[in-house]
Amino acid sequence: MTRARLENLTASLLNSKLDAVILNPGPTLTYLTGIQFHLMERPVVLFVVPGKDPVLVLPELELPKVDLMPYKVQAFAYGETLSEWDEAFRRAAQSLGLDGKRIGVEPRQLRLLEFRYVKAGAPEAAFPDASEALAQLRLRKDKAEVDAMRRAVKIAQDALEATIPLMKIGMTERDLSGELVIQLFKHGSDPDLPFAPIVSSGPNSANPHASPSERKLQAGDMLVVDWGAAHGGYISDLTRTFAVGEVDAELQKIHKIVQEANAAGRAAGKPGVPCAAVDIAAREVIEKSGYGQYFNHRTGHGIGMEAHEDPYMRGDNMQFLEVGMAYTVEPGIYLPNYNGVRVEDNMVITESGAESLSDMPREIRVVG
Amino acid sequence: MTRARLENLTASLLNSKLDAVILNPGPTLTYLTGIQFHLMERPVVLFVVPGKDPVLVLPELELPKVDLMPYKVQAFAYGETLSEWDEAFRRAAQSLGLDGKRIGVEPRQLRLLEFRYVKAGAPEAAFPDASEALAQLRLRKDKAEVDAMRRAVKIAQDALEATIPLMKIGMTERDLSGELVIQLFKHGSDPDLPFAPIVSSGPNSANPHASPSERKLQAGDMLVVDWGAAHGGYISDLTRTFAVGEVDAELQKIHKIVQEANAAGRAAGKPGVPCAAVDIAAREVIEKSGYGQYFNHRTGHGIGMEAHEDPYMRGDNMQFLEVGMAYTVEPGIYLPNYNGVRVEDNMVITESGAESLSDMPREIRVVG
Repeated sequence: MTRARLENLTASLLNSKLDAVILNPGPTLTYLTGIQFHLMERPVVLFVVPGKDPVLVLPELELPKVDLMPYKVQAFAYGETLSEWDEAFRRAAQSLGLDGKRIGVEPRQLRLLEFRYVKAGAPEAAFPDASEALAQLRLRKDKAEVDAMRRAVKIAQDALEATIPLMKIGMTERDLSGELVIQLFKHGSDPDLPFAPIVSSGPNSANPHASPSERKLQAGDMLVVDWGAAHGGYISDLTRTFAVGEVDAELQKIHKIVQEANAAGRAAGKPGVPCAAVDIAAREVIEKSGYGQYFNHRTGHGIGMEAHEDPYMRGDNMQFLEVGMAYTVEPGIYLPNYNGVRVEDNMVITESGAESLSDMPREIRVVG
Repeated sequence: MTRARLENLTASLLNSKLDAVILNPGPTLTYLTGIQFHLMERPVVLFVVPGKDPVLVLPELELPKVDLMPYKVQAFAYGETLSEWDEAFRRAAQSLGLDGKRIGVEPRQLRLLEFRYVKAGAPEAAFPDASEALAQLRLRKDKAEVDAMRRAVKIAQDALEATIPLMKIGMTERDLSGELVIQLFKHGSDPDLPFAPIVSSGPNSANPHASPSERKLQAGDMLVVDWGAAHGGYISDLTRTFAVGEVDAELQKIHKIVQEANAAGRAAGKPGVPCAAVDIAAREVIEKSGYGQYFNHRTGHGIGMEAHEDPYMRGDNMQFLEVGMAYTVEPGIYLPNYNGVRVEDNMVITESGAESLSDMPREIRVVG
């Protein structure tokens, strides 16, 4: 499987007029090798050049991983002495004749650390952004990938269901987040959660990116829980919004609107439709209701190995949906200094439409 | 506190002949602001220029965080449209007059993503490595920081003690790692663990960086557990090695040697002694025993907000230890294709020596 992925990358490099691509530890490297490398203070870089064996620069300490590689690689290992690092990168770049060539990079993943070592080894090379070519590789999930995501969704849903009975007035957002994390692991999540759960209540729920605070749940709050699990290197990313005790009529109303927007966004996806259509379908519901200005983010983002990846459900994204693409639908309404609502599901494009991997009740549920 | 930290940074910039420093989401940004920003596909950058209010470029979505900043910042927010991103960075760089200046960077944290946006806004600027100046800021932990680390150590120790009764012959490394993660959260770890626990048994334990596998614990195995917890943004990083059932005499012997090396390394730290002395003290014990070639990594690394930070306990590091510096002592012996041992503690330099924050029994304990 990883060999086929390497072959796809090679073909893609030739199409993109790139002579090489360099990868540091992260999802694309794992996708291509099936192996987890650590992103740490010691640089690890895989060089992929069409027609040659890939080259791996890594600390001697990580050499045992070379034996696990799914295809032959040429390894350049360095020891604990800093001067060996430059030397290993120079020899790697020279062995591939990379100077003056076009070496594709992933700017969202590659750090200056690795970049500068590679550049010192190939000072006349150009480093064009290869994100799109690399994202393309991972864009259409195969059955094994969708199965892993389905499992990550199930773990997340089961964990939240087990947490709901614990949601009580007076409990802090932080404590609730801690309980949810325990349930995620009890239900089988891999150790690296895709992100720390967002648990935001009352005015905090009006901030889409809030971090759990010491604020205590109060009657009348909306309670936004945005959480996910990891399984086999793939993740889930869901949101449900609860009412703590009795909430006022406007909050019930905006929840209903967001739920309808979520349903419209979920229904809009199918092969051949642009990503923009998903955003527009969800946004239209909220705009028609008069709350358009309070939905201040895109409707969704791709998911898979990362919590945010291609394709993005933005109104200006004319990229066409294809079978196997996976993404979130997560419209929201955020009333500043008051309360917010978001409802988020994980979708995958099928032959005939879009399947929601998540199926937890989306209606407002009363807790506390 | 964060204001004093900003002032320290400003003084350090003047000393380092830097006109500015740029920080993306990560430990140094959190250290300076007390606020967690997400490292994501949208770039967030704080520009610090002596004598001016800091400038923050961030997505509109994150604007509520500006109100939480502990000092006045000038914010340049961009919307969901990609073209706004360039514009926000250009305006930020121009407002600070940064073009042609020396802008310090953290190559281990800064991605090409943020670097290229900043560079587009200040094309003639130089971007020297400011890692050392920035690491200096975080090098000497204050009481609150040591207290947080002490708590992170206690959580980790309590979690492992609760996991030991579950260690049974036939259990997989992965399942054991999962149980340990659950215990870490039950005992109060923050959601972002410093790293996924290493649980490696038998031949896997001879790889210092192994990932938990489906291998089942067998009688006669050494079992290395390298784990840590997080509390209040600070971490612990410990290792203990167990015997699964009865292990042979050589394994018992190397455990004893490693334990002595660990004790020697712990005893070697005090103010005014170079980091190298810690490495040499631990390494000498292993070399004298004839296993020197099987201790193939440095003796330790700094810890604090990150699992690996300055100062490094390497034989070539002549940096002097100072009160408040915190680091690991983690010698090991790894016999390829056979078994390995590591014993790791977390130290902090005091007026009179080095205190071990960790105090779990270090002797070989039999499990299974």
